[in-house]
Amino acid sequence: MSNRSYAILGTGALGGYYGAKLQRAGLNVHFLLHSDYEQVWQQGLVIESPDGDFTLPHVNAYPDANKMPPCDVVVVALKTTQNHLLPEMLPFAIKEGGVVLVLQNGLGVEEKVAKIVGSERVMGGLCFLCSNKVGPGHIRHLDYKAITLGEYTPDYQPAGITERMRQIAGDFESADIPIQLAEDLLFARWQKLVWNIPYNGLSVVLDATTDELMSDLHTRLLVEQLMSEVLVGASAFGRKIPDSFVEKMLDHTAKMKPYRTSMKIDYDEGRPLEVETMFGNPLRTAQAAGVDLPKIAMLYQQLKFLDARNRHK
Amino acid sequence: MSNRSYAILGTGALGGYYGAKLQRAGLNVHFLLHSDYEQVWQQGLVIESPDGDFTLPHVNAYPDANKMPPCDVVVVALKTTQNHLLPEMLPFAIKEGGVVLVLQNGLGVEEKVAKIVGSERVMGGLCFLCSNKVGPGHIRHLDYKAITLGEYTPDYQPAGITERMRQIAGDFESADIPIQLAEDLLFARWQKLVWNIPYNGLSVVLDATTDELMSDLHTRLLVEQLMSEVLVGASAFGRKIPDSFVEKMLDHTAKMKPYRTSMKIDYDEGRPLEVETMFGNPLRTAQAAGVDLPKIAMLYQQLKFLDARNRHK
Repeated sequence: MSNRSYAILGTGALGGYYGAKLQRAGLNVHFLLHSDYEQVWQQGLVIESPDGDFTLPHVNAYPDANKMPPCDVVVVALKTTQNHLLPEMLPFAIKEGGVVLVLQNGLGVEEKVAKIVGSERVMGGLCFLCSNKVGPGHIRHLDYKAITLGEYTPDYQPAGITERMRQIAGDFESADIPIQLAEDLLFARWQKLVWNIPYNGLSVVLDATTDELMSDLHTRLLVEQLMSEVLVGASAFGRKIPDSFVEKMLDHTAKMKPYRTSMKIDYDEGRPLEVETMFGNPLRTAQAAGVDLPKIAMLYQQLKFLDARNRHK
Repeated sequence: MSNRSYAILGTGALGGYYGAKLQRAGLNVHFLLHSDYEQVWQQGLVIESPDGDFTLPHVNAYPDANKMPPCDVVVVALKTTQNHLLPEMLPFAIKEGGVVLVLQNGLGVEEKVAKIVGSERVMGGLCFLCSNKVGPGHIRHLDYKAITLGEYTPDYQPAGITERMRQIAGDFESADIPIQLAEDLLFARWQKLVWNIPYNGLSVVLDATTDELMSDLHTRLLVEQLMSEVLVGASAFGRKIPDSFVEKMLDHTAKMKPYRTSMKIDYDEGRPLEVETMFGNPLRTAQAAGVDLPKIAMLYQQLKFLDARNRHK
């Protein structure tokens, strides 16, 4: 059993699920909470999952990062719309020699963390997880759970597979979380955007589930065209995602259960949308590389409008 | 006073308004109705308008085109989604030597009519009208009323100003409807799409009024980009709409009262949307000319999805 300690910044659908799995596997886990702090401090965490429900009656819960013990691995599991809080959290939560693992969607998140803790202390991860928080400290895991891990380097030069990646992967695997190790984090991030951009964006704009988008010929074609634009964006950075990956994502999604995307859930709950990291940053970085992505740009504009109105309702 | 007779095919917000104005000015008008026939036959038409409310207690109402007397001017005021009915209507409604005046939005409508009555008997008109039907035979005119008239020719070669255009314009002007005579109907149709495509499309997709679209920076820019794409489409046919026209439309709309577009009203009422004539035909004709309009194409795909779902609800 590893003796690495984990800090979970953001104990919601994602952080609560992975943190609980790690603690249950015997790891030393510390949870940062905001609105759910009292409840979780008193009653712990409840996880429902097709892998088996379980309860952790006691967890190490903290209302403030500066009350947490510094940890070996600091998992950033906040919504990216909360990332302005990171400068006040990370310096307290991370141990000397520790690493920050950014489990967030989109692009540009690691740069921000690197500015706070130094680029040699940053890793990124992409979660393929379908999970909801259904109440304070109460997580309902629905499907998928794998994580792809990659090292961050300045300018996203591929960093290969490092020893600490293997160690962290081992911890997660001991908690029954499948891990893929990516030699090139930026490639993995663009690859994930192939799914996230069309489905998250269109699900909000068209008030639609994945199966509705796939069963209509027009939106199915639009999804495919948006995916192709993501490939164009990736190629501006020398990341050649093959066209066959688009087909694979389309086939995979057509076979999935009807799925309400995370952005749609945020929208329905009146929470701010992760538009900037998932759409704005890819668009701006591609534009800076001289590449225009017109349909993604239009989706971004539509989402910005809806997000602003949703929050002023 | 002219002795031209008018047939109004489609006595709704548009046909009911213009037909009533013509009859009130002393012209010989015949109204085709469907669901409102009984009511209008018995009680006539009621027009509310900022120019003054008025009632026509008796109108010539018909439930079937084959019961109408053949008229000099047959005004097509149906929604374009009803155009499949025209082959059964026009041959009955038009007098020898008469003309069909197509008062519909979008592109490709005159070609269809020309196949039925011959291209030398077709004119087109663009209505700048804000009017709703609020009940059977009850029209509420809100704002604007002008019409731009143009002659149809095969391949939309500019036909100049003809004598029959002046005569029909005279009839409408005698009914207090301002008329512009267009030498080039296709130019006028593309010009009208500069407004119709962004506002009608986005109002449905984003559930928004014109003022909401104009006050958000992202959608205001998107409106402008969509307008620029319409200019690209028009230029594929040698119609050079100046960039200043885009600015003019933006300024004009920003100053308008908050406005729910006609397509949004159709959507809210569960009626089929005029997507094909307003979006599909411009896209297909531009594509055939080798021009790609990516943002308009995306709006078309989104509208097709929403329209199909709206009608199956």
